[in-house]
Amino acid sequence: MGEFDLIKDYFEQSQTCDDFVQLSIGDDCALVTLPENSWLAITTDTMVEHTHFLPSISPQDLAYKAVATNLSDLAAMGAQPRWISLALTLPKADEVWLAAFSQSLLQTLKNYNVTLIGGDTTKGTLSVTITAQGLVEKGKALCRHQAKVGDLIYVSGSLGDSAAGLQQILSGKSAVGFDEEFLQQRHLRPTPRLVLGETLVGIANAAIDLSDGLNSDLRHILKRSQCAAEIDLSHLPFSPSLLNRYDRRQAEQFALSGGEDYELCFTVPPENQSMFESRLKNLDVPCTCIGRIVSPFGEKCGQFSIRFFRDGQPIDYSPNLGFDHFKE
Amino acid sequence: MGEFDLIKDYFEQSQTCDDFVQLSIGDDCALVTLPENSWLAITTDTMVEHTHFLPSISPQDLAYKAVATNLSDLAAMGAQPRWISLALTLPKADEVWLAAFSQSLLQTLKNYNVTLIGGDTTKGTLSVTITAQGLVEKGKALCRHQAKVGDLIYVSGSLGDSAAGLQQILSGKSAVGFDEEFLQQRHLRPTPRLVLGETLVGIANAAIDLSDGLNSDLRHILKRSQCAAEIDLSHLPFSPSLLNRYDRRQAEQFALSGGEDYELCFTVPPENQSMFESRLKNLDVPCTCIGRIVSPFGEKCGQFSIRFFRDGQPIDYSPNLGFDHFKE
Repeated sequence: MGEFDLIKDYFEQSQTCDDFVQLSIGDDCALVTLPENSWLAITTDTMVEHTHFLPSISPQDLAYKAVATNLSDLAAMGAQPRWISLALTLPKADEVWLAAFSQSLLQTLKNYNVTLIGGDTTKGTLSVTITAQGLVEKGKALCRHQAKVGDLIYVSGSLGDSAAGLQQILSGKSAVGFDEEFLQQRHLRPTPRLVLGETLVGIANAAIDLSDGLNSDLRHILKRSQCAAEIDLSHLPFSPSLLNRYDRRQAEQFALSGGEDYELCFTVPPENQSMFESRLKNLDVPCTCIGRIVSPFGEKCGQFSIRFFRDGQPIDYSPNLGFDHFKE
Repeated sequence: MGEFDLIKDYFEQSQTCDDFVQLSIGDDCALVTLPENSWLAITTDTMVEHTHFLPSISPQDLAYKAVATNLSDLAAMGAQPRWISLALTLPKADEVWLAAFSQSLLQTLKNYNVTLIGGDTTKGTLSVTITAQGLVEKGKALCRHQAKVGDLIYVSGSLGDSAAGLQQILSGKSAVGFDEEFLQQRHLRPTPRLVLGETLVGIANAAIDLSDGLNSDLRHILKRSQCAAEIDLSHLPFSPSLLNRYDRRQAEQFALSGGEDYELCFTVPPENQSMFESRLKNLDVPCTCIGRIVSPFGEKCGQFSIRFFRDGQPIDYSPNLGFDHFKE
């Protein structure tokens, strides 16, 4: 099996029909159009073996997660996903692996109404780079730099599950009980919060998806928006499964520094709170207010940083800054 | 130096201003708009160490080539390049290497008026994946499937130089003489034929860029267009440097099976030939007619394949099909 047969056999299958895709896989480029009044949101994420996943990961989980983490970035902009390009680097053309990977990839794309429009297949260490693109109404995207003093800070879903699930996988624990299964699935199969993201357009000021841990990711909003935050740790939402297996302090660490939850963290101005809470009733994604945006602190305290509270009382707490590829 | 400092220090520098880029590096997604009456052309190419380049390649040459090969795909659609996303996988954060790589990347983008709008930086075997995007007038892109029987087949520039240059690099030859320098530069610094590509819009029926060798790449046009080709090998354009160092038969093999020339191969209907030849006078890219598109052959001969000639006489010739990652 050669490179071109491989692409044809596994990836050039019938897909969701998208009126805006003029030309898909099989030429030098794909060709797309945009509907009027739309901006195109573009994001790229790479997953490398040994860095982002263990060699033991199933091809199905790898394909799912590579798509989901990219769609999560679109969700964080309030964008509706439309198409992706796939750059797949493989050590060899293993047909069983490829059949499982491509089937999972195409099924995941179908579930989100997304078209695979092209890519590149090369030889090397296993690695998946996806460039995902989506549409958002002109001028309405949720950006990191638009948080305002007074905004309420929310997070979706529950935090820390993914880091706990990863710890279990790394320690070789198989997913025997409900809680273990839940936590490991939260690591392997994160849910991109796309419907929530689209709902937040026109309501939230700023948003980010939680890929590196709340402590690190929220700081990106603070730095870009030139403000600070107060977070009450007692408000952090945890799943029953996480609290069944870990104490609260450990759960907090997972949430703040663990990463890969792919929940959304966003800021809502108080005047939009009631509208937001009422729209939230139509979604099946719980969202929790965990703090608020405040004026920058003095230079000594880190101007654009986070002050932590527990049960309303300020505490002295410096959680780890979360995953960074090039820091020890 | 951490991941975020690295992106900030090396890649988040002032760039060409593009009115269509609404938001660039530093958020979950970049945001762009399209001008009216434009289609967006999208292409992705990966370069992996040991597969696409030797560890000895300079960071400057690597950055240049990663950009140029992607822009070449846009040229083959007749598209004008606008922005790229960069997924860079690095074994470590080597500041000297990164400074050289990013400077060359940004300078190359500037030369082509292209904006770096985002990407991802991860740890692993050195690998560069670029997704490049460009604009082409609605309905006017040069596709592989539109060649018609009777079209004249042209190639730009000279063929085979890159494969010869690679052979020299692999054999450890340093670029001492003019010819060696020329051939090695043609391998390391291919020129994306962007102006030619845009000129061909409305003139050529089909186009492809020559990345895997003429024999392999032309067949993509033939298969997609459901036709066959006749090529006269005596018309293949070779550089003086190639013919100074190799005999004509070896030059033909480089051209047909060697790849990485990143010249354009395109088909022009006879009624457009004089308009094409006159527009060509304003460009500094020589183009050579090497054959024509003909009706499909019988099934026994390979319906959508190439019949070779030399000095007008049919010859029995089956050149290697060119580079394929997963074929021996």
